[in-house]
Amino acid sequence: MNDKNIPDIVIGRLPVYLRSLQRMEQEGRQVTSSQELGERLGISAAQIRKDLSQFGEFGKQGTGYNIEYLSNQLLEILHIDRTWDVVIVGAGDIGSALATYNGFSHRGFRVVGIFDNDPDKVGDKVGDYVVANTSDIEEQIQANNIQVAMLAVPAGNAQAVASELIDAGVRAILNYAPVSLNVPPDVRVQYIDPAIHLQRMTYYLD
Amino acid sequence: MNDKNIPDIVIGRLPVYLRSLQRMEQEGRQVTSSQELGERLGISAAQIRKDLSQFGEFGKQGTGYNIEYLSNQLLEILHIDRTWDVVIVGAGDIGSALATYNGFSHRGFRVVGIFDNDPDKVGDKVGDYVVANTSDIEEQIQANNIQVAMLAVPAGNAQAVASELIDAGVRAILNYAPVSLNVPPDVRVQYIDPAIHLQRMTYYLD
Repeated sequence: MNDKNIPDIVIGRLPVYLRSLQRMEQEGRQVTSSQELGERLGISAAQIRKDLSQFGEFGKQGTGYNIEYLSNQLLEILHIDRTWDVVIVGAGDIGSALATYNGFSHRGFRVVGIFDNDPDKVGDKVGDYVVANTSDIEEQIQANNIQVAMLAVPAGNAQAVASELIDAGVRAILNYAPVSLNVPPDVRVQYIDPAIHLQRMTYYLD
Repeated sequence: MNDKNIPDIVIGRLPVYLRSLQRMEQEGRQVTSSQELGERLGISAAQIRKDLSQFGEFGKQGTGYNIEYLSNQLLEILHIDRTWDVVIVGAGDIGSALATYNGFSHRGFRVVGIFDNDPDKVGDKVGDYVVANTSDIEEQIQANNIQVAMLAVPAGNAQAVASELIDAGVRAILNYAPVSLNVPPDVRVQYIDPAIHLQRMTYYLD
């Protein structure tokens, strides 16, 4: 199922399809079509059919997709038919917002700790968590076999912290620091930098 | 310069190139190469040269790119050689983190207001801002010709608020609500949903 030859851009669309399908499920819907999904998402129906066809035969010509079945297949393909433990590094505004965000638990992730190297922040309560010292993070990652981290530290610290996380066993980093990270080929990084996203849009504005 | 035929995926890489170039400028550097940029970013040098060549001839064979010149060209191409006023809708954790984020002002954006429809939040201080009532947003957008908004409201409200923003004149929305928006073809939307980014990575994990 995990065919590494499928382009990452296709993989990137699967969670978006899944989110729409799960919303339809919440609405009590049972069947949808690539046309309907496409309209909801602003993606062509042909693209959606082509993307999904890389993973199997999920719909029948003329009858569309069974929403629950397709959702479950996507959960499996994306490996979120399990729950991934996640650490947050950085207990500033962004790290704190992530720690209190309630959108992870039903989407495959459980935040298990938030860390900071600022002695003034260590021990503080953030949502349900007590901020731990970053010096303890390696031990925690190894003890609990944690592979996923969210990085919300200042740009100047990001590479050093990322390297430490990777040494400890992390394989996927969601990086909020506005800086590109050098990582080994078997480590994935996704970037969230609001200015980058805004700049991508102003290109189209006059 | 603003050739609409250039693929959006190329446009999406330009801000990433710019961020690296600006970091090099801060480091006091004057010249770089597609090789060096590529190594910093994990993108092939050939891809970088191909992307940039769509906008002109920025480097000389063998001497590389002048960092300041290329930065300035990218600022122009992305239309951030000016400052864009931006409104934030939603004064929860994410909206508040955005309002106090100091990474916008030197990258082409100025937050001019934060809005919420919760009477308990209206009037609160968030960083340098006083939370205003969302009912006043249309007037503000029109009076100040604001084209860019960041949307950090609950998923259930996002479409309604987005439609209101667009009616008032907004043409670019950075959407933090975990829901796809229906917008007219002349409006750009970028999505920031951490769970989506995490799910894109767990595909590659065992």
